[in-house]
Amino acid sequence: MNEKQRKIAPRVLKGFRDYPPSEQLAREELLSELRRSFELMGFLPLQTPSLEFAETLLGNHYTPETLAELFGFRGPDDTDMALRYEFTVSLARFVASQPNLPLPFRRYQYGNVWRVDKPGPGRYREFMQFDIDIVGSPSLLADAEVIAAMVSTMERFRPVEYRVRYSSRKILNGLVEWAGVSAEQSPDVLRVIDKLEKQGIDAVIAELGAGRIDSSGDKITGLQLNAQQIERIGLFLSTIQGRDGTEQGRSLLEEVAAAQAGFADLQTIAGSLRDLGVSEEAVAVDLTIVRGLGYYTGTVFETTLTKLPEYGSVFSGGRYDNLVDRFLGRSIPAVGASIGIDRLLAALIALQALPLREATSEVLVTIMDQERLPDYLKLVSTLRQAGIACELFVGETKNLTRQIKYGDKVGIPFAVIAGSNEFANGTVMVKNLHLGRERAASADNRDEWLKAEGIQEEVKQSELIHWLQEKLRQLRKGSLR
Amino acid sequence: MNEKQRKIAPRVLKGFRDYPPSEQLAREELLSELRRSFELMGFLPLQTPSLEFAETLLGNHYTPETLAELFGFRGPDDTDMALRYEFTVSLARFVASQPNLPLPFRRYQYGNVWRVDKPGPGRYREFMQFDIDIVGSPSLLADAEVIAAMVSTMERFRPVEYRVRYSSRKILNGLVEWAGVSAEQSPDVLRVIDKLEKQGIDAVIAELGAGRIDSSGDKITGLQLNAQQIERIGLFLSTIQGRDGTEQGRSLLEEVAAAQAGFADLQTIAGSLRDLGVSEEAVAVDLTIVRGLGYYTGTVFETTLTKLPEYGSVFSGGRYDNLVDRFLGRSIPAVGASIGIDRLLAALIALQALPLREATSEVLVTIMDQERLPDYLKLVSTLRQAGIACELFVGETKNLTRQIKYGDKVGIPFAVIAGSNEFANGTVMVKNLHLGRERAASADNRDEWLKAEGIQEEVKQSELIHWLQEKLRQLRKGSLR
Repeated sequence: MNEKQRKIAPRVLKGFRDYPPSEQLAREELLSELRRSFELMGFLPLQTPSLEFAETLLGNHYTPETLAELFGFRGPDDTDMALRYEFTVSLARFVASQPNLPLPFRRYQYGNVWRVDKPGPGRYREFMQFDIDIVGSPSLLADAEVIAAMVSTMERFRPVEYRVRYSSRKILNGLVEWAGVSAEQSPDVLRVIDKLEKQGIDAVIAELGAGRIDSSGDKITGLQLNAQQIERIGLFLSTIQGRDGTEQGRSLLEEVAAAQAGFADLQTIAGSLRDLGVSEEAVAVDLTIVRGLGYYTGTVFETTLTKLPEYGSVFSGGRYDNLVDRFLGRSIPAVGASIGIDRLLAALIALQALPLREATSEVLVTIMDQERLPDYLKLVSTLRQAGIACELFVGETKNLTRQIKYGDKVGIPFAVIAGSNEFANGTVMVKNLHLGRERAASADNRDEWLKAEGIQEEVKQSELIHWLQEKLRQLRKGSLR
Repeated sequence: MNEKQRKIAPRVLKGFRDYPPSEQLAREELLSELRRSFELMGFLPLQTPSLEFAETLLGNHYTPETLAELFGFRGPDDTDMALRYEFTVSLARFVASQPNLPLPFRRYQYGNVWRVDKPGPGRYREFMQFDIDIVGSPSLLADAEVIAAMVSTMERFRPVEYRVRYSSRKILNGLVEWAGVSAEQSPDVLRVIDKLEKQGIDAVIAELGAGRIDSSGDKITGLQLNAQQIERIGLFLSTIQGRDGTEQGRSLLEEVAAAQAGFADLQTIAGSLRDLGVSEEAVAVDLTIVRGLGYYTGTVFETTLTKLPEYGSVFSGGRYDNLVDRFLGRSIPAVGASIGIDRLLAALIALQALPLREATSEVLVTIMDQERLPDYLKLVSTLRQAGIACELFVGETKNLTRQIKYGDKVGIPFAVIAGSNEFANGTVMVKNLHLGRERAASADNRDEWLKAEGIQEEVKQSELIHWLQEKLRQLRKGSLR
């Protein structure tokens, strides 16, 4: 390094963050659980590049402006490229490039995606997503399998309460047709209907018509639908809101073929879910679900946490039958769902539904007497061979209290101490740092309990492994899962 | 999608690639094994952003040209940023930003890194690395722990034969000093010495002097050292080459303090490794090791595979005590090692040392009779509840042979078939696709064996789970680990 350089601030980019060990351990745990869950249902992992051609992500009419809405740039070989903002386009590209891929293709993919959104609390420009999709099946059995995968995955985080709700885009499309809304205006109308759960029916009606003033006093422009249009939409929404209004909704839209097809889909899916053993508590039809993305063509679904409704949907998706078109010029039907890993993780941590570890080491072997270093090293080796995660204190200090404080700060549950007395007796002293932390009433007396006699025990060297295994088993049982 | 758009070629960027399921499954398996290995030694996971400030990666004298040597660009908020090309700088940045981090900090990090190198066979611009480091300890115990971590990790891939070799930079630095080479020319001299193993001593001597013609006829310019310089370096290299020349090398450099410090380090590390139970077969001192990176200041180490020397080092590193300087203006000592995941994975696959799965599903439930759909769905649910990974055929075809061909192509080992006869008997038919594949002499008669009676068996529904569990156990035992 050039010594004349000024110091560089150890900063991260706006909207980016580090994941320190305590959070990263929980994330790894969550990812493992998700992989296990989806592999049990036959989903296969795929990994695609982080960078893609700009035209792959944006289509071939992109501009420098639309490229800058992603993390896009002109890279090596004078090629326009950008970081992926989701996985579905890359999945479509992969499928289009593999004519011999066995279909249906059940795949999962997880990893980082990047979006140039305005960062805010809990909103980052780099975040992790976990997607499952079934590509190449038009059958509603695939929709049912994706919903069943969502349910059996959420079941792994019990006692967390959740509800997977689903609907079919065909129904609201039918409603809009019935109300006489133009194809051009439909997306806007659906966007307003999407606010039903959060804003209530009066706000939605107002926004379909003349507009309204929102809670912060801002004017929201209305869509200026005519009275009959608003009446029909309002009638439908008030019929179905807040309950299973499938029967009533179905008869209201009796003449609308698209909507009737949607209702038939929902009935088929409900039957398959029942046969797949999915509890009726876990899933519900909810005709008000829109899901933002324009590309959904059939079933749509989302997952909310009963005790944390403010987290919104943690696992959502739907059927999209047109995505491969841009590469192949023909359709391949697909259905899938996506988890926002960091949002789900934050929720599971808030609900204490993940076992949280601070340290990976279960035992810290301290160095009390430099002369006995070979004995400490042998002890470390023996513990590791028995499968006990263990580290030797390799820091600078020779001060035993400071070594133990290190173990405490890292969160290691046990520290082993041995000096000439212990070696003469064929024993070691084990300090239960975990118990000590629990007993410490406040951070103020943290130093006190480190010295407390009550949290340490003399254990025969010949019994140490068994003793630790037993204590660690108890510790794990006491954890939240 | 705009229907007027022309089709987009489903391409990936030059130097990038997809990882299809068969490879990604093996990668996931390798990563899990590595996480387990390092967690057993108390290493903690850290994740840092993929994008960093340009000055974090390049120092504050970077130019548009040096930025373009990375995947660097001017991004949102008019900020120069680039994709990380390794993890160590980000680790240093993280440590510098966390004054309360307990030290020593044992951390692992894995993920993608990006380099604008010329792509070639096995060389990609996006690839995965897995690093371990111990930050904040000047003690050689930390060096020994990193080497022990490398050994115990490689032990997990037995019967693969490997050797971890290590040295200290201090020794070759001492040699260069003894030979009277200027500080300015030292890096070039070390770079040439680094070629010893591949090119042999004559080539190295020639390159230190007047130069040489390489095997492809190209002229390699020599460093023009004088005769005495070349003689001293040549004497040392011929003394140590191809054997443990520690004793001889040590007496040759008797008067050189730096080199003697290096020899003392190696002796201390060897003792610690012995006490940590590291087999003497697994590790060896090799004084010719240089390691390319300029920032190593002490111990250096690398791992080669005995049967695949052409793969070079799969796991290497060293001690670097100056890296945090650029952020803090003071040093924090550190030692670490890095695995090139894709290279190690390719080697382990070539050596058949990883269990390779093609499919995640262990059972495909086919649909022979649409009327019995509820029964198939219930069967799927029952198998999954018993922990048997299983999928329902959700594709378009109703043709049973084509359903079974799908299972074969994906690599699912068993297919369950049931029609009215089987339901009447309370049985199902199980086709052993795995056995069928083994029996199929060539791809030509693949269709034949799918029909073969010998690979299918009628199993009572009440005994199906037990039967499958037993068969799957046998299958796994037959796998390579």
